[in-house]
Amino acid sequence: MKDAKIRLYVEHALGAGQSVPLTREAAHYLFGVMRRSVGDGVLLFDGQNGEWLAEVTEAGKRGGMLQVASQTKPQQMPPDLWLVFAPIKKARTDFIVEKAAEMGAAKIMPVQTDHTNSERIRVDRLQAHAVEAAEQCGGTYVPEVAELTKLGALLDHWPEGRQLMFCDEAMAGQANALAAQTHAAAPWAILIGPEGGFSEAERKRLHALPFAHPVSLGPRILRADTAAVAAMALWQKALGDWG
Amino acid sequence: MKDAKIRLYVEHALGAGQSVPLTREAAHYLFGVMRRSVGDGVLLFDGQNGEWLAEVTEAGKRGGMLQVASQTKPQQMPPDLWLVFAPIKKARTDFIVEKAAEMGAAKIMPVQTDHTNSERIRVDRLQAHAVEAAEQCGGTYVPEVAELTKLGALLDHWPEGRQLMFCDEAMAGQANALAAQTHAAAPWAILIGPEGGFSEAERKRLHALPFAHPVSLGPRILRADTAAVAAMALWQKALGDWG
Repeated sequence: MKDAKIRLYVEHALGAGQSVPLTREAAHYLFGVMRRSVGDGVLLFDGQNGEWLAEVTEAGKRGGMLQVASQTKPQQMPPDLWLVFAPIKKARTDFIVEKAAEMGAAKIMPVQTDHTNSERIRVDRLQAHAVEAAEQCGGTYVPEVAELTKLGALLDHWPEGRQLMFCDEAMAGQANALAAQTHAAAPWAILIGPEGGFSEAERKRLHALPFAHPVSLGPRILRADTAAVAAMALWQKALGDWG
Repeated sequence: MKDAKIRLYVEHALGAGQSVPLTREAAHYLFGVMRRSVGDGVLLFDGQNGEWLAEVTEAGKRGGMLQVASQTKPQQMPPDLWLVFAPIKKARTDFIVEKAAEMGAAKIMPVQTDHTNSERIRVDRLQAHAVEAAEQCGGTYVPEVAELTKLGALLDHWPEGRQLMFCDEAMAGQANALAAQTHAAAPWAILIGPEGGFSEAERKRLHALPFAHPVSLGPRILRADTAAVAAMALWQKALGDWG
């Protein structure tokens, strides 16, 4: 089997000896764009069963078939971390989703805040970005992109025990209060505010929540996309799988 | 004086009572794009003397004049941190420069590595990105973007005492070795490898350098732009001005 550097996410439970049909899009990418053909190796993951080496057994313009050989990586789940953010300009929203997948978020949750302009998001497009990032970064998991919800509604139904790290740009320069020791085993979420910052009402509510931990990301005011990566790095180092 | 939310970097030493001429570009932005006029307030910084409130006294199509009133922020220098990276695709290179300015790097140094394809960079264009990011993030400092140099040559003339944190994707999943305690007062640099990773020769040399500290950024392989933000976040929190 030749060169297996290409990694593909497939929506098909993987196991030794299985035949995996390719979608039209995957076939176009693999055979049209990447010029692979029968006999070539491809790495597959399904988000649940680790990474597997597979061999191309049929290659067509509209589809194809792969035969799974052996497991190359065990499944590695990310920590139970949600990234909650207010969608902004298209390019930066795409970027946040890509970064959340690379950095190891378990779920990506776009929210509307008082100062968010974005009324709609394309979940399918954002989900495709998360898949592509997972293919690139060598991970075996694809975080789910949730539908847009209102921040207030999300907080109304907040799951018991889940801690919330929120990055308040009004705190720029103040000490970081990430309670690393006390909630190491808990599920967490990181909330990144919108470009215009949280409203006064939101800020008040967030600071009063017993499960919320305000955190400062230094003396400069970061863009939302920068803040997302920086906050996930600090969290992963203190509480996640970068330890 | 009306609304002073616009922040402009000017190449003109600022002080109370001074008159500051505007370049053609700045005049176009301020009066053409942002619709400001005589009597409006603007925040200025020069990278050395903090932030000042100034009033528009002349507004023209090709230029204009501002009168400096009072200081609104003292100068705040970033820690002595270089961000050294291998330029990649244009959009991601622009992004790394923007992020370095926001995250508080003192100097941005593009380098050629064995696996870097980029032969040239436009320093003036990258410098303009750093200026824009400084204007956005509320900082009073603009990091200098250096000319492209070879990584080997940079290491040959490495300044005595400067520590180097380098992010080796071959170490993904291994323990983080950032020697926070021992070099807290030293100048530092962060080196981000190219998309294809360092060559074997480069990796060998880097690991053998007495001032180099290899650091892992978790079990997934990060893109260079993600790695730059994540590494700067960890460094700022451990050794920089996020403490």
